Amino acid sequence: MRELASWMKERGPEGDIVLGTRCRLARNLRGIPFPEAANREQLREVLSQAAGVTPKLSPAGSFTFREMATMDALERELLVEEHLISPSHMQSPAHKAVILNDRHNISIMVNEEDHFRIQVLKPGLQLEEAWQRATRVDDLLEEHLDFAFDLKTGYLTSCPTNVGTALRASVMFHLPALRRVRKVQEVLGAVSKFGLTVRGLYGEGSDVYGNVYQLSNQITLGQSEEETIEHLARFTSQILHSERQAREYLLEKERRLTTEDWLYRSYGVLQNARILSSQEAMELLSDLKLGIDLGIIPHGDPELVKQLMVQIRAAHLQSIMGQPLPAQERDRLRASLVRDTLEKHMTKTQESR
Amino acid sequence: MRELASWMKERGPEGDIVLGTRCRLARNLRGIPFPEAANREQLREVLSQAAGVTPKLSPAGSFTFREMATMDALERELLVEEHLISPSHMQSPAHKAVILNDRHNISIMVNEEDHFRIQVLKPGLQLEEAWQRATRVDDLLEEHLDFAFDLKTGYLTSCPTNVGTALRASVMFHLPALRRVRKVQEVLGAVSKFGLTVRGLYGEGSDVYGNVYQLSNQITLGQSEEETIEHLARFTSQILHSERQAREYLLEKERRLTTEDWLYRSYGVLQNARILSSQEAMELLSDLKLGIDLGIIPHGDPELVKQLMVQIRAAHLQSIMGQPLPAQERDRLRASLVRDTLEKHMTKTQESR
Repeated sequence: MRELASWMKERGPEGDIVLGTRCRLARNLRGIPFPEAANREQLREVLSQAAGVTPKLSPAGSFTFREMATMDALERELLVEEHLISPSHMQSPAHKAVILNDRHNISIMVNEEDHFRIQVLKPGLQLEEAWQRATRVDDLLEEHLDFAFDLKTGYLTSCPTNVGTALRASVMFHLPALRRVRKVQEVLGAVSKFGLTVRGLYGEGSDVYGNVYQLSNQITLGQSEEETIEHLARFTSQILHSERQAREYLLEKERRLTTEDWLYRSYGVLQNARILSSQEAMELLSDLKLGIDLGIIPHGDPELVKQLMVQIRAAHLQSIMGQPLPAQERDRLRASLVRDTLEKHMTKTQESR
Repeated sequence: MRELASWMKERGPEGDIVLGTRCRLARNLRGIPFPEAANREQLREVLSQAAGVTPKLSPAGSFTFREMATMDALERELLVEEHLISPSHMQSPAHKAVILNDRHNISIMVNEEDHFRIQVLKPGLQLEEAWQRATRVDDLLEEHLDFAFDLKTGYLTSCPTNVGTALRASVMFHLPALRRVRKVQEVLGAVSKFGLTVRGLYGEGSDVYGNVYQLSNQITLGQSEEETIEHLARFTSQILHSERQAREYLLEKERRLTTEDWLYRSYGVLQNARILSSQEAMELLSDLKLGIDLGIIPHGDPELVKQLMVQIRAAHLQSIMGQPLPAQERDRLRASLVRDTLEKHMTKTQESR
């Protein structure tokens, strides 16, 4: 079985609520049009500079340069599901590349919307660490590449919304208790007024599955990177606080039994279903993770559940099964994978009941 | 734990579809008004004759005479849940009694709608046997009691619908596959045209829970007991055939997985729920019984499920727990009883998966 990206296997700070943190820096080469406007030679020139700079990144890890066109569709989709490349980077692979480290927690998309998009992914809440790491990679790149930078406005980017710091920091939350008590809107609804934005698991326009929400900064101009990170961290701790309050509420004496009933039923369905759509699986895994994190379902490994949240996705499932699968087969094998994984890793739960 | 009535513990013929068979004979003492019209002394006279005749029934088993007023409410309710007495017999116990055998498969209600209502209950499909047994008890009674009988019309009864043979024979079906394929109405809808009637688990006016339907004769006049039993047997085999067809349909290659998914999910909820209403429990146990009977859920004992269908009812549950329980406690303890019972008796299923 293919190794999962490290940030998805490991537990990080506040791992009961924060699945992961991501920092992304957009950079463009001076004197070459943005990818959208560049011609074939210019795009190839970017690829060539990217390939050339890859070995120089070794102080930050062991990196590999791969042109998207040399990967098969499944391999590209796996990277999307791990959040290492964007869906658009997968869909039109011509003249695009990715520079990946071996732990799959740093990726540099080449010729996506910008010439370079440096992404660092960390398990749990690690805004400062992710940003520092991204900056380190950026510094290594800048030693060898000439990035378009303006003293007054900062980094120039293809989309004006990124101009300035060109930093997008995101925190991926698991908020099942807030959803349960119907307070997601109340807690997340107002963030846009504060220059932040909320999306589903797979970014812009993606639906919220399994109570996973991504909170990111929208503003890149007029504030420093430090301010951006601090601002996001402040909101993050408010959301953490609200989710924790909701979890305590669900555990209060008069409703603890109802909470247990809800979470155990989901666990029972996961252990027994023979057909699982990816959406239903996400919802049920969300319940299971909450059950384990609340200490209701004992002997469970919440990281196992976090891993399953990726492994049940179409490309990972096909990769695990070693063959392309029609949709109905996918639902059957998804149920089978979930069942087998839970049986293997959570048997103690059965015994202790 | 109180012993369950034998007919609910044992498996009978066609036990995958027929839970049990019941034959009831109504008898009234000559010269005493029907219970509804009788005064206190007349009712006591019936009780006295009933008490006196009880020891004479010994050739048919070991019988005990109990006045309803001497039983506590729980004990009476237990008998209702086992179908040994009617709900009305429980609700107004004054001047009423029951003569019960020790195996709890023969009961004679005294001063219900009629002076005597002899009931025989058998596991599975045993129409002929149940009727013969009831007739045997009736013969023993008639050796000592003088029943109102008219050569032209037959036995006289309080309600004109019972006059004649005064025989009501019932077959208790479990029809989950017909319900699943939405053919219950088609199969059972027309029976009234043939002098038969369909009710839920607890008789007239009771809802259908857990896909349990009771089919009984409506006609007692103008046909012999043999004809009544034969007629009901013929319809029973038609219903058995339809349910078997529906079960085969559910197992056909293109829908077997969906069937497995449905039944295993119900099993998973039963194994994990912390709150179960009696209605939901009945529905889920119905699924589990079907899963075992179809061979989908291995190592299961369908009689265990049949027993649980009674044990989850309010009075049995309170009896098992040894105390009166408020409704919410009942739902919690019902879930706990189901979980513990399945864990204890179906552990092989877990191991073999």
